[in-house]
Amino acid sequence: MLRRFGSARAALETVPQLARRGERSRTVAAVPRAEAETELSALDRAGARLICWGEPLYPRALTAIEDAPPILTVLGRAELLPRPMVAVVGARNASANGRRLSPELAASLGEGGVVVISGLARGIDAAAHLGALETGSVAVVAGGIDVVYPEENRGLYDALARQGAIIAELPLGTEPQARHFPRRNRIISGMALGVVVVEAAARSGSLITVRFALEQGRDVFAVPGSPLDPRCRGCNDLLRRGAILTENADDVLSQLTVQLRDAPPAPPPTPTLTATDYVRIEPPHPIADEDGLEMILERLSPTPVAVDELVRQCHLSAAAVATLLLELELAGRVERHPGNLVSLR
Amino acid sequence: MLRRFGSARAALETVPQLARRGERSRTVAAVPRAEAETELSALDRAGARLICWGEPLYPRALTAIEDAPPILTVLGRAELLPRPMVAVVGARNASANGRRLSPELAASLGEGGVVVISGLARGIDAAAHLGALETGSVAVVAGGIDVVYPEENRGLYDALARQGAIIAELPLGTEPQARHFPRRNRIISGMALGVVVVEAAARSGSLITVRFALEQGRDVFAVPGSPLDPRCRGCNDLLRRGAILTENADDVLSQLTVQLRDAPPAPPPTPTLTATDYVRIEPPHPIADEDGLEMILERLSPTPVAVDELVRQCHLSAAAVATLLLELELAGRVERHPGNLVSLR
Repeated sequence: MLRRFGSARAALETVPQLARRGERSRTVAAVPRAEAETELSALDRAGARLICWGEPLYPRALTAIEDAPPILTVLGRAELLPRPMVAVVGARNASANGRRLSPELAASLGEGGVVVISGLARGIDAAAHLGALETGSVAVVAGGIDVVYPEENRGLYDALARQGAIIAELPLGTEPQARHFPRRNRIISGMALGVVVVEAAARSGSLITVRFALEQGRDVFAVPGSPLDPRCRGCNDLLRRGAILTENADDVLSQLTVQLRDAPPAPPPTPTLTATDYVRIEPPHPIADEDGLEMILERLSPTPVAVDELVRQCHLSAAAVATLLLELELAGRVERHPGNLVSLR
Repeated sequence: MLRRFGSARAALETVPQLARRGERSRTVAAVPRAEAETELSALDRAGARLICWGEPLYPRALTAIEDAPPILTVLGRAELLPRPMVAVVGARNASANGRRLSPELAASLGEGGVVVISGLARGIDAAAHLGALETGSVAVVAGGIDVVYPEENRGLYDALARQGAIIAELPLGTEPQARHFPRRNRIISGMALGVVVVEAAARSGSLITVRFALEQGRDVFAVPGSPLDPRCRGCNDLLRRGAILTENADDVLSQLTVQLRDAPPAPPPTPTLTATDYVRIEPPHPIADEDGLEMILERLSPTPVAVDELVRQCHLSAAAVATLLLELELAGRVERHPGNLVSLR
């Protein structure tokens, strides 16, 4: 929408109008200014800040994923976020071996120049965060940024807020619920160049992160373990399916050589920008006319069709089709699918 | 030679004559009959027997390797030898995990219908032998069949002699020396459809067995382990290089489905045969003439050349070229190389 309307302000003003035109049953209204300001003040009091998609501090790799969060809440050293990152995740009930190996691995990855991301869970996650605390450690939490979960990791949370960073997608005060964890995991893999699984039982949460990593085209690394330990079953299974066998940080860093070499330098520290400060990507397009809307509706069905195909068939500009589809989407009449496909609801 | 001369007797009579013709400096003479008979009696007293290449009880897979032993000494149930086999090998200083896993694996392989082979060493080997004692367990020893090494495995040796089988390439009474072990390892891998490495440090003896297995076209299986345990380094490294990740017997058996399905049924029990009883493979060829010898010598150089190429260039039959090359080899003038290549010494 920023790209379509040229600024956040213009988008916010136009959306309700578009939604009306799209004959959507329920009204679309922007969050009232006062409510937004209250939330910003609360964030400020919590020592946190917002980072929006497109801002220099927004995690680089995350920008590219299909459902990148438009806004992240960040506590701690936001300057860590644009640096190359690797996720280290694993079992909560980690073995003694896993608890020893993951901080070593995380520390060596840090020495190798990457920031380590994990999920602030017990076990492997916590150990990995600790190992990389000196070099760069980022936790992505499932609830609001001010909600410490699990409680036993409060000390680690405080350390990360001081020395590392904590990231949340959901608003302040949100208590994490079961359905939030997979959504959170997509951010962990999405921020990372690769995901290292240290220990994981079959059907564990770490394997959800791996599924996202594969969808997002990230490298998946797995630490092998004894077949006698069920906590290694997930990793051994990943290895069987082609994950990169990982005994130490070199196994990871050597695989990521190209990405690390091509990583742009971190941006200089900047003051927080507001949306209107920097979103000047494209001039606003005139809202497309009713004829265009009709043409597109005629060509849509419940079977998904490529947006490019619509552009070609309607003889409209890609920008005009995008605006019309946005309008129909806001009106609840169009559904989007992966691969830039759309269908009629 | 059996194939060339039609019987062991004919070969033994012809070889000294060939060697003389080849202008070899030292004389080639068959072992005197009395000496051979003494050795056979000693074997008999030890309860052992000979099995020769080509006999029904000779291990099937071993028949096909380039340097298959012409004669094996066997103690115990020789009827195990023609059955499909899998080798289970690993570290002598095995971990508790390895000592627990290898007998389980060996027992399950046995239940799956394969005979388990190993090297009677301490650690993984001994544990694997024990696990498969009920279903079929074969030890290949580096020295003579009557020499128990290491001494601590005497109990296992006795159990194998009763319930399983022990095999040796070297004559009775030979004390195993360092150089004998790699030669022994080629027999272990050569007898097997696949080699499973349970634990192996970097540069360990098990990796020599793997090298032979790869040269012989055998599948290599490796059990993953923690990077924190140096005894797992060899296995993890094998996995990185493409070995099949193995957590249990199914991982092995499912890979060998085709070979196990196509394995011919075990031969019926037969009395021991003597070489002259069964070697009637081909009628004897006349010894090739001096002209052929000259033609071949002209075309040979210190650079290895394919035997097929010699056949084509000399316009001789393959059988004639083979006889001439054998003659030159006995005379110490020709050297053989893998891939059916020969060169002038």
